[in-house]
Amino acid sequence: MVIRYPDGKKYAALQTAPNTRKSSKSGITYSNRGMTLEEDINQTNLYYLENQVAVIHKKPTPVQIVDVHYPKRSAAVIKEAYFKQASTTDYNGVFKGRYIDFEAKETKNKTSFPLKNFHDHQIHHMKQVRSQEGICFVLLRFSTTDEVFLLDASILINYYENQEERKSLRKEDIQTHGYQVPIGYAPRLDYLQIVQSIYFA
Amino acid sequence: MVIRYPDGKKYAALQTAPNTRKSSKSGITYSNRGMTLEEDINQTNLYYLENQVAVIHKKPTPVQIVDVHYPKRSAAVIKEAYFKQASTTDYNGVFKGRYIDFEAKETKNKTSFPLKNFHDHQIHHMKQVRSQEGICFVLLRFSTTDEVFLLDASILINYYENQEERKSLRKEDIQTHGYQVPIGYAPRLDYLQIVQSIYFA
Repeated sequence: MVIRYPDGKKYAALQTAPNTRKSSKSGITYSNRGMTLEEDINQTNLYYLENQVAVIHKKPTPVQIVDVHYPKRSAAVIKEAYFKQASTTDYNGVFKGRYIDFEAKETKNKTSFPLKNFHDHQIHHMKQVRSQEGICFVLLRFSTTDEVFLLDASILINYYENQEERKSLRKEDIQTHGYQVPIGYAPRLDYLQIVQSIYFA
Repeated sequence: MVIRYPDGKKYAALQTAPNTRKSSKSGITYSNRGMTLEEDINQTNLYYLENQVAVIHKKPTPVQIVDVHYPKRSAAVIKEAYFKQASTTDYNGVFKGRYIDFEAKETKNKTSFPLKNFHDHQIHHMKQVRSQEGICFVLLRFSTTDEVFLLDASILINYYENQEERKSLRKEDIQTHGYQVPIGYAPRLDYLQIVQSIYFA
C-alpha cells in the first residue's frame, strides 16, 4: 500500500536514511533536532528551488531492476530489484551558472569523522568534478552536537588518500579547514551562503 | 541472476529504453545503427569521462520502494517497488565549470517531433535551470534517418507552451533553430562540440 501525505505526495519512509534521529518529545519542533541530515538538505534544497536561489536535487537511489510485472489496469510493479552502489555523489545541481556537487554524511562520534563513510568511487568522482572546475564539497554533521561543516573536496581527498596515517578526520582539522554551516528554520542548512563566500569570492 | 559483462559491470537490460532498434545483421557495427539514443549518450558520456572532457551522468530511474527483504548472508532484495515520475531531466553534469542539463528523446516520425514526449515537470525544471544560468537543451533523434539535433531548452519551452497551435515540432523548425549533432565512433554523439560552439562562443 502506498501511504500519501495530504498533498498527495507519496510517503517514502524506506528511502530516508536508516539512522533517523529521534524526534523531540512534543513531536513538533522548529529546531533542527529530529531530522536526519538528508531531510534537512532536502528541505533546504526545496527552499532554494522555490525561492529561485539554486536548482539542486538528490539523485534517486540507484536500483538494478530484475523483474517487473505489468498487471492489467494498474501500474507496473517491480518484483525483484537490488540496490546498486552509486557511481557519483548524492547531490548535484546549478547555482549561478556554476555546477555544484556534494555528498552528505553524519556521525555519532564526537571528536572525529571516520573516513570509512566515503568510498573510492565517490572520491574518484569528486576528483573528476574538480578537474572540470565544478564546485565540490562534503557536508559533515556531528549529530550529537548538531554541528554541520562544509569541507572542500580537496581537503577530504587529501585525508582519504593518506589513511595509512589516520582513519578519520579529526574534528579540529574539520574546524580548521572547513566552514560551519548556519542552522536555521528556512532554509534549515544554508550551505549556499558558505558556497557563495568561498567559491564566488 | 545478475548477468555481468567481462569487465564485471552488471548487464542492465531492463533499464535501457524499451524501443531498442534492431541490430544490424552482422551483429557488429561501427555505425550508429542498432543503438538506442540512450545507449549512444551513455557511451558518449563514458568517452567524455575517460578523456576528461566532461563529467555527465544519467540519473538513476526514480523508484518508490515499498518492500525490502533482508536475507541472511546475501544482498537485500527489493520485493515491491513502483516507477516514479522523474522531477528533473535525465542527464546532468559539468563541462568546463558550467552546469549542463538535458533530456533526450527519439521519434519514429519522419517530419515532426511530438511534444507529448515531454512533460510539464520537465519543462518546469528546464525553466528553473535556465533561470540559474545553467546550460539546458534537448537531444532529439529522428530514428528512421538517424539524425540527432540539439535544441536549446528555450525553443522547446516556447513550442511546448503554444501547443494549442501545434502539437509537435516540425522537423524544419528543429533544423532552423537547432544544431545537428555529428555521429561518429568515439564519441558516438559529440553533442559537447555543439555546446562548446553555441554556449561558450
